[in-house]
Amino acid sequence: MIRGLLSVLLVVVAVSVCPAMAKPGKNIPSRGKRIPQTLSRGWGDQLIWAQTYEEALYWARAQNKPLMVIFHLEDCPHSAAMKKAFAEEKNIQKIADEDFIVLNLVYETTDKHLSPDGQYVPRIIFVDPSMTVRADITGRYSNRMYAYEPSDIKLLLSNMEKAKQLLKTEL
Amino acid sequence: MIRGLLSVLLVVVAVSVCPAMAKPGKNIPSRGKRIPQTLSRGWGDQLIWAQTYEEALYWARAQNKPLMVIFHLEDCPHSAAMKKAFAEEKNIQKIADEDFIVLNLVYETTDKHLSPDGQYVPRIIFVDPSMTVRADITGRYSNRMYAYEPSDIKLLLSNMEKAKQLLKTEL
Repeated sequence: MIRGLLSVLLVVVAVSVCPAMAKPGKNIPSRGKRIPQTLSRGWGDQLIWAQTYEEALYWARAQNKPLMVIFHLEDCPHSAAMKKAFAEEKNIQKIADEDFIVLNLVYETTDKHLSPDGQYVPRIIFVDPSMTVRADITGRYSNRMYAYEPSDIKLLLSNMEKAKQLLKTEL
Repeated sequence: MIRGLLSVLLVVVAVSVCPAMAKPGKNIPSRGKRIPQTLSRGWGDQLIWAQTYEEALYWARAQNKPLMVIFHLEDCPHSAAMKKAFAEEKNIQKIADEDFIVLNLVYETTDKHLSPDGQYVPRIIFVDPSMTVRADITGRYSNRMYAYEPSDIKLLLSNMEKAKQLLKTEL
């Protein structure tokens, strides 16, 4: 954790990311009527979201579509900004709907391949239907390669196009 | 750091899929406005649902509460009947809210301990915060030991009370 903080301080042109994932208990509001949680969590109510990574991988294989995993946190302003940009960009929503399996997580999985350069949010990782994590599809920040900011939305779109070029399955 | 250690402790092996659970594509309606999916899926909108098993285990440990995992399917009439009974039983909702971490899944996890006598739905498995699956807490059907029907709601309540008697942690 300390090393994480130091590295953020040392990098001059650092992308804005949040270092940690969800803490337990934060979701629990004081007594009173709660609003049901949605699987979209605001990243696109019209998309069909997978609930878990296992489920998402299954869909990706079965439908032969790439998977897009969005790691974020409800109380991270950088996540919130990216979420807004993502939800409002019609092309992204359309392509995500038609050509991708989508999953958003506020908690890390146990699969280390999903954090090639660390666990931070927001972070977007593509996975080929052959179940290969596309570590080659990166954003524009060398210190946080899978982070995106709202101004990177066009790059994200072109990365989605890249992810649609499926790897050949050797099987 | 602590979270890092915890994630190492989580036992999840290579991802595999289960043919018995949700089939892909079923969720995709024809074009038109979709209703956002909720994490509760009708099992109690006022409960705080974990999204994934990893997340649920983390909360269970952190809050020292037992975990209740409900396996079900949207298009299974037995699941639907049990869901209705579960959602409408105030005592169950109250105890689930106050004393449990809750998770409902329409897809199997990779942890075989969660299917002691097979993968079927509806199926309710309790997990102690020590991360021990409480295979000893069963319903009344010898061939499907973790299945419950609406008429078993009282038994489910007493099983919840049993799950609240935490196993001693050896650590």
